[in-house]
Amino acid sequence: MPRWFKSDNTAPAAPEVMAALAEANRGYARGYGDDAWTARAEQRFAQVFGREVRVFLVGTGTSANALALATLVPPYGSVFCHEQAHIVRDECGAPEFMTGGARLQLLPGAGAKLTPEALLRCIADNPTAVHTVQPRAVSISQATELGTVYTPDELRALSTTARSHGLLLHMDGARFANAVASLGCTPAEASAGVDVLSFGATKNGALAAEAVVFFDRDRAADFEFRRKRAGHLFSKMRYVAAQWLAYLDDGLWLRLAARANAHARRIGEAAGTLRLEQVEANEIFVRPGAAGIASLRSQGFEFYDWGAEGSGEARFVVSWDQADEDVDALCAALRALPANATA
Amino acid sequence: MPRWFKSDNTAPAAPEVMAALAEANRGYARGYGDDAWTARAEQRFAQVFGREVRVFLVGTGTSANALALATLVPPYGSVFCHEQAHIVRDECGAPEFMTGGARLQLLPGAGAKLTPEALLRCIADNPTAVHTVQPRAVSISQATELGTVYTPDELRALSTTARSHGLLLHMDGARFANAVASLGCTPAEASAGVDVLSFGATKNGALAAEAVVFFDRDRAADFEFRRKRAGHLFSKMRYVAAQWLAYLDDGLWLRLAARANAHARRIGEAAGTLRLEQVEANEIFVRPGAAGIASLRSQGFEFYDWGAEGSGEARFVVSWDQADEDVDALCAALRALPANATA
Amino acid sequence: MPRWFKSDNTAPAAPEVMAALAEANRGYARGYGDDAWTARAEQRFAQVFGREVRVFLVGTGTSANALALATLVPPYGSVFCHEQAHIVRDECGAPEFMTGGARLQLLPGAGAKLTPEALLRCIADNPTAVHTVQPRAVSISQATELGTVYTPDELRALSTTARSHGLLLHMDGARFANAVASLGCTPAEASAGVDVLSFGATKNGALAAEAVVFFDRDRAADFEFRRKRAGHLFSKMRYVAAQWLAYLDDGLWLRLAARANAHARRIGEAAGTLRLEQVEANEIFVRPGAAGIASLRSQGFEFYDWGAEGSGEARFVVSWDQADEDVDALCAALRALPANATA
Amino acid sequence: MPRWFKSDNTAPAAPEVMAALAEANRGYARGYGDDAWTARAEQRFAQVFGREVRVFLVGTGTSANALALATLVPPYGSVFCHEQAHIVRDECGAPEFMTGGARLQLLPGAGAKLTPEALLRCIADNPTAVHTVQPRAVSISQATELGTVYTPDELRALSTTARSHGLLLHMDGARFANAVASLGCTPAEASAGVDVLSFGATKNGALAAEAVVFFDRDRAADFEFRRKRAGHLFSKMRYVAAQWLAYLDDGLWLRLAARANAHARRIGEAAGTLRLEQVEANEIFVRPGAAGIASLRSQGFEFYDWGAEGSGEARFVVSWDQADEDVDALCAALRALPANATA
Repeated sequence: MPRWFKSDNTAPAAPEVMAALAEANRGYARGYGDDAWTARAEQRFAQVFGREVRVFLVGTGTSANALALATLVPPYGSVFCHEQAHIVRDECGAPEFMTGGARLQLLPGAGAKLTPEALLRCIADNPTAVHTVQPRAVSISQATELGTVYTPDELRALSTTARSHGLLLHMDGARFANAVASLGCTPAEASAGVDVLSFGATKNGALAAEAVVFFDRDRAADFEFRRKRAGHLFSKMRYVAAQWLAYLDDGLWLRLAARANAHARRIGEAAGTLRLEQVEANEIFVRPGAAGIASLRSQGFEFYDWGAEGSGEARFVVSWDQADEDVDALCAALRALPANATA
Repeated sequence: MPRWFKSDNTAPAAPEVMAALAEANRGYARGYGDDAWTARAEQRFAQVFGREVRVFLVGTGTSANALALATLVPPYGSVFCHEQAHIVRDECGAPEFMTGGARLQLLPGAGAKLTPEALLRCIADNPTAVHTVQPRAVSISQATELGTVYTPDELRALSTTARSHGLLLHMDGARFANAVASLGCTPAEASAGVDVLSFGATKNGALAAEAVVFFDRDRAADFEFRRKRAGHLFSKMRYVAAQWLAYLDDGLWLRLAARANAHARRIGEAAGTLRLEQVEANEIFVRPGAAGIASLRSQGFEFYDWGAEGSGEARFVVSWDQADEDVDALCAALRALPANATA
Repeated sequence: MPRWFKSDNTAPAAPEVMAALAEANRGYARGYGDDAWTARAEQRFAQVFGREVRVFLVGTGTSANALALATLVPPYGSVFCHEQAHIVRDECGAPEFMTGGARLQLLPGAGAKLTPEALLRCIADNPTAVHTVQPRAVSISQATELGTVYTPDELRALSTTARSHGLLLHMDGARFANAVASLGCTPAEASAGVDVLSFGATKNGALAAEAVVFFDRDRAADFEFRRKRAGHLFSKMRYVAAQWLAYLDDGLWLRLAARANAHARRIGEAAGTLRLEQVEANEIFVRPGAAGIASLRSQGFEFYDWGAEGSGEARFVVSWDQADEDVDALCAALRALPANATA
Repeated sequence: MPRWFKSDNTAPAAPEVMAALAEANRGYARGYGDDAWTARAEQRFAQVFGREVRVFLVGTGTSANALALATLVPPYGSVFCHEQAHIVRDECGAPEFMTGGARLQLLPGAGAKLTPEALLRCIADNPTAVHTVQPRAVSISQATELGTVYTPDELRALSTTARSHGLLLHMDGARFANAVASLGCTPAEASAGVDVLSFGATKNGALAAEAVVFFDRDRAADFEFRRKRAGHLFSKMRYVAAQWLAYLDDGLWLRLAARANAHARRIGEAAGTLRLEQVEANEIFVRPGAAGIASLRSQGFEFYDWGAEGSGEARFVVSWDQADEDVDALCAALRALPANATA
């Protein structure tokens, strides 16, 4: 029986979400989002962020990210982002597709985070003219692809720099719940300065539920056409909305994320000197070496190799309902690795 | 309490489908379709069509259609289709988007059906050169947007004509179940000569489950990249696959469709001389006039106006779980319209 | 020795244009339009239209049309145009490509002309919703693809109708010179109500010189990026600008067009009852039948068959330097056709 | 009176090219490349490369590059190229546009050259899956953007590596003449292993003439549609073909390039320790510092700053007809710079 740490998308959906689906499955409702569940979900987002927002529900994180960017950036535009970003490495070119061919301009940065300095350097190295793509946006991930989290101060510094260069700010929040739970701040603070947020629920207890949240309502003008045109407007939208209602209800989303984060922190501590990155959300990056990786696999742990071929690195992701005993077992296994000198 | 005949997408999901979702919600599974449910669903499609096929699951009919066409047609290509086709009127340009700008070339035809004659005329009227878009495919709907159905003979005639001009054949099967149930033939016969089928379950009892079925497996080579790139590869694919398993299991899909068809036939008969089209699936088109429409609305029937403004036409769609008493009420209301001279 | 009436693009360039090229070929000049010739050309356009304009030079009519439309219409938009329009039949889908997949919505109309009535009917028949492409522009040709010309009054009526429905107006002026010469009005009157004009010189005496003229300067904001990105920004722009300077200088463009028009009028008269369309520019459409076509070909006339296969129709186009004797010969040949009952 | 070293596109056209234009401007000719000049030009390319090729003429280097890549790479594909490549920095995203959104994956490399090692490293760092863009091609520049040249051996090594990973090889030959002249080899050797070559004439004596040369004729199948659709099929193609005929006639192209190269070599020697790159073609990169740059500008030299802001670097480009006295003056000015310790 494998112990799954491959990805939080290997986990099932939370019982509250399943119950909401069943509840939504009664009677008839208008299609395409013109239903009571969607209307209530939209209000719920406004409460979560403490301000009016425009929200569009979709079914995948890739569509949320790429459609959001398509609304911000023209085909001849570009988006500054981290070279490890999901939009760069894991979406098969969806941003390029949805924007009509805009470019991702890749920046380095520790912990998969962008800094104002890196952004300014990249802007300076790429002076614009009619011959160049036109920078229009910055995209960051919260939590990042390396399991780190931007503080509200870091966000404000980034967005100030972006804004002063005419760049809009997009946040890929596939693990936004983990970031908010980790920071212990409000959702608004965890997305300070952001123009558009791709807010994910799928990885943290939903079946397939993502939302694109526009904080500047005017920016959203053409989103609905892009969503429809890309085939992402569900006819029976109530089933997506119902997942969101359950997810946001009563703080479920933060409870689930906080539990995963706590487990991850324990695993990170157990990883000791093998640990590669700060564990600030639900992901742990380690370098057990080839032998260590083989040993962990032989004990039934499912996880991804990381980095270049032969790097000896691995990624573990903790899900919302990860069994305590799996976490205990992983901690023990990591501690037992010969290379590990736990502090 | 309204009586809903607006669209089959206003109906809830079938209990068997909901039960399958609950069953799938156990334990961990690999993401992105590399799971047991998806594997089983793929085998099920092969059984349904009596041959090997390649199947890709998606969540909306628009994505199924547009991604299928993108696989068949280059950006400088064109697709012949009926001027009433869903891909023309109801997808906000998704085929153009997914193909990279291919064109839909619109044909007339009674009952929203294409004929070999209409196709040949359009080909003759549009001689090709380097200056023109290049015809590469034909797309038809089964059942059509006017509730009619192609017979296997009609399909074979169409596909023979298409093939002899180097055109591939796509079928929009958003209501394929209704067509098969209506024809009383096998699914293979109801899609005779088709290269790629967009097979829908959403309108007939699922929450959000569509499939793109390639009968020529070699044609499918790049579909998986296009699906991912368009944001239509679900991370928790098992939930889409589970819907399909329930839908195809034990003939559920055909039972639900047959029931809706039978209701529709009754309504069509009650419509008498008001009826505009043959009722061969689950849709009824009538011309009650402005007064008739107002009368029906005042009795609580929900439906769409049809045709140009002021046409006095209306569309009724019967869902898989339409209440008998709603159907009875609609039949009575139609019979009672002054303009109706039932045979 | 053939007598060429195939197309005005089979003619050579005018000597004045060749001389201007030679004159421009002296010394060094900044690239990409930042040169004295381009600056002077831009001023010349302002004089021609009696108002400030923004002008962008390109090398082909297809690029002028498609880039202009891309500036007016979003990817999910649509353009109303005549079913015979060059953008429909002769650009291999360039408008769809440059706009990112917008749709051309085709209208009928005598003489390849749109009318406010046809436009209103098409708008009424295509009510918009999130599910439909969004109409954003109208495109007309001046002169049309059937050799007719819009009067200023017709243009004003069309643009008023377009504007009242939120539609911008594009004019394909590949033969704008012929239209202005035919109307005997100012260039401004011949483009009354137009937002963007594709102004051609290639067919009427240049080698390769087209211009996109924005009457609303604000609309042009992103054109320069689209032109560059599509590969249509010439590095040695002075050679395109020089063609325009010669073309517009001293009314050369109108003299050349007037001469071709006059020839065409004579041919149209000679065509008598064989003539299909009003001859208002430099094109003549006739129906000599299969035998008549064969007879004309055997006499050395080069021209295109027209219409559907077997229609017995033909198109003759008169070029700026068409030899008088070729015109005389064609007139005589047409008069001599048995089917021709000249009035 | 400025001395121009800004770019080879600031130079006029060669007299032989102008004469060919005048010669081509006689009588009528079929449009769109179906003329005698184009046919002869196509044969000439076969002679130049000593093998059958398929050639398509266009008017700009950006269109040549982007259309060539669009033929090699699907929308979900990617192209490995140097981070300094023209397709990256100077085409406003044309490759992304023409390919439908494919990605450029950037590699470092001395002298703006790719090596098999850099390529292998990038391939190893970007393992592919359905979630990633799919590598399909490599693009290199000959001569490079830093004025260096690939030897035939280097080309063979690169193409072997590319081929063994299923990658096609594109060469941006905007300065192919300078490369061939520099290597003293045959054109075939200077493009060894290349699948498609963008062969430029504009910078080296033409007005606007580029060619896309397919060495594998089967790869060219859809190029003509892409060219037309992008607005790059000239109606009066003979004027582009005539430029090519003059350019390739009697070795003119190599004579002009050899002259520019020799001048550049002299300037490179004069630059002494200020020189940054090998001078193997017609470009010289130097670091005179801010004071040196100011001094050179004050002496009337026109050139571009290079590198990041404040780098103190500059680029000089020698044109085909650069005046000897301008070259002498630049050599003297460079030698006189205080920072220059000429060997």
